[in-house]
Amino acid sequence: MKPYDYHVFVCTCPTCSKKEAESILLAFRQKVEKRGLLDKVKVTRTGCLSSGECMYGPLVVVYPQGVWYRLVTANEVDEIVEKHLAGGQLVSKLLHFKLS
Amino acid sequence: MKPYDYHVFVCTCPTCSKKEAESILLAFRQKVEKRGLLDKVKVTRTGCLSSGECMYGPLVVVYPQGVWYRLVTANEVDEIVEKHLAGGQLVSKLLHFKLS
Repeated sequence: MKPYDYHVFVCTCPTCSKKEAESILLAFRQKVEKRGLLDKVKVTRTGCLSSGECMYGPLVVVYPQGVWYRLVTANEVDEIVEKHLAGGQLVSKLLHFKLS
Repeated sequence: MKPYDYHVFVCTCPTCSKKEAESILLAFRQKVEKRGLLDKVKVTRTGCLSSGECMYGPLVVVYPQGVWYRLVTANEVDEIVEKHLAGGQLVSKLLHFKLS
């Protein structure tokens, strides 16, 4: 396995999927590929990421940094990919929690 | 959301599920609870963690440390919980990859 910079987990639990979880997952996969980041970024579907927190979902968590985003829509995936995954900066307006 | 120490992701893709992925996921949830680690450890089910790597599975990855374990069986979950999640030490014999 080769080193990578980011592992993005997209919650597709029933609560998050009632909103746009599936579109968000697809958008991440498409944008990461389009932006040429496949070697640096993994994108993975998950079951419920955090019991009790998905009311704020759809939730997305980026490791190893431990950055949780909430209320993500497919339209905002571009910004997370461009600013965070390509540029290394948090998207503050979508921040839910950051592991210290 | 409260801080936590470990987020364990268990791959339950078709390849990993042909082996013991579902039993491993259940074992992690049971052992983490039994060991009183629910406040410190999250356990989440995932789709395919890493295309091409699941031939070495079942795969388990622990973040934010970026420690990947492979060939995990339900019998070995106790050791990962006790040594790594409770004790903070890697289980070297199951190590697949460590993100630097």
